[in-house]
Amino acid sequence: MSDLTLALNQATTKRWTLAEAIAGCRAAGIEGLGVWREPVADVGLATAAAMLADSGLTVTSLCRGGFFTGPDAAAENWRAVDEAAALGPTTLVLVCGGLPAGSRDLSAARQAVADGLAALVPYAADRGVRLAVEPLHPMFAADRSVVNTLAQALDLAERFPANQVGVCVDTYHVWWDPDLAGQLRRAGSRVFAYQVCDWVVPLPADMLLGRGHLGDGAIDFRHVTELVTAAGYTGFVEVEIFSAEVWDTPGDRTVATVADRFRRHLSQR
Amino acid sequence: MSDLTLALNQATTKRWTLAEAIAGCRAAGIEGLGVWREPVADVGLATAAAMLADSGLTVTSLCRGGFFTGPDAAAENWRAVDEAAALGPTTLVLVCGGLPAGSRDLSAARQAVADGLAALVPYAADRGVRLAVEPLHPMFAADRSVVNTLAQALDLAERFPANQVGVCVDTYHVWWDPDLAGQLRRAGSRVFAYQVCDWVVPLPADMLLGRGHLGDGAIDFRHVTELVTAAGYTGFVEVEIFSAEVWDTPGDRTVATVADRFRRHLSQR
Repeated sequence: MSDLTLALNQATTKRWTLAEAIAGCRAAGIEGLGVWREPVADVGLATAAAMLADSGLTVTSLCRGGFFTGPDAAAENWRAVDEAAALGPTTLVLVCGGLPAGSRDLSAARQAVADGLAALVPYAADRGVRLAVEPLHPMFAADRSVVNTLAQALDLAERFPANQVGVCVDTYHVWWDPDLAGQLRRAGSRVFAYQVCDWVVPLPADMLLGRGHLGDGAIDFRHVTELVTAAGYTGFVEVEIFSAEVWDTPGDRTVATVADRFRRHLSQR
Repeated sequence: MSDLTLALNQATTKRWTLAEAIAGCRAAGIEGLGVWREPVADVGLATAAAMLADSGLTVTSLCRGGFFTGPDAAAENWRAVDEAAALGPTTLVLVCGGLPAGSRDLSAARQAVADGLAALVPYAADRGVRLAVEPLHPMFAADRSVVNTLAQALDLAERFPANQVGVCVDTYHVWWDPDLAGQLRRAGSRVFAYQVCDWVVPLPADMLLGRGHLGDGAIDFRHVTELVTAAGYTGFVEVEIFSAEVWDTPGDRTVATVADRFRRHLSQR
């Protein structure tokens, strides 16, 4: 396994402000931070950009744009690109949106994603912002994203230059994929972001919040990470855990667990 | 859409005995019954076979064998084949099994499924029992089945003659698949069973029991059924709904709803 570097995704310490997340990373020796738009908005974009520039942390990604199947996606995505440009520029992660209300037409929704992405790419490219299409687990096909496999995400990305549109690989969403090795080979330099958390069984009632720390579930992180690094990826590993239980834990304890599990399950250092 | 015929799967009226299920189908004019091993065992195999033969119903499938990744799978699967032979012979549906306890090795589990299936096929073929590999939704990869796409199920089935090993297509498990149309074309005559229920959002706490009557969720049944019939399938449509709410409803009301929804969402008659 190659020597990837740990980053914290802000979703893992959801109740921390941006200032607290920056301080928490520095205290724990974590060098990268995956940033969310909401805590950035809380302090204002210019202030957030200055805080992050001063922090010495690498902004590993901005979460998130997309939702192409909903109303007013275009204007909101331009704003998200502007923010990603101001914060780096960094990669903007795209969660593409589920079926529109009342619709059962998956094909139409998938076409709307393709069209929305095509409209966004030139705007992002002009601002030096890379777009990372994130396939979401098929259990989110109805309500969060009709893009459900890495193959699908790459079908979308490959219509554009490899330095403009790629994918965000999240172990939680792709670990089950029988074609994972093949699609990661195909992805190559289009792996723009790599996020990890574990698949815990049984899933809690709110399946959006059923994710676990590395080692608490079914995913073989060494195996998936070997495939990701074999694709040529050399960036950060963002630990991104949506979990009511993790959110109820004090942030500094969560970050300590994140760093410990990273060492045990993913680091060679 | 072609003119498929409605069948009840016993899982939909879980609290009914075999005798009640037979009577319920006859009262509602339903001509096929997908049978489960447990209610058959409750009356004894010979009695169940005689009851079903006398009923005039077509036994559309027996649920279920498989679980190749667990202990003692082989002996249990021989028994399941014997039962499928006695009840028709009818098609035996195979749910292939999740990760073994303590394992994170998906590849090894998938290989165990392939090996277990290969060992079972000659026994089933000798008894005239067709085996239908059922891909389960990827959200069950850890705990119920490491076979999660129709492509994977067909990769397994195609190692054997097309009249011996095929697939069971369940809308709940495959509706999200971006390659559904292509894989159903590929499947052709290997579609041995077709089961339907709806994907309800949000999923209830126990995701195994989160299924709905046709029309209550996100699935376009006409579309999926057109693909299934285009593959050449002309058999029954089994309505199979795992749902605590449906199970709490009196069986005759459930069967009336099943028949009504079938007429509205799937029948041309």
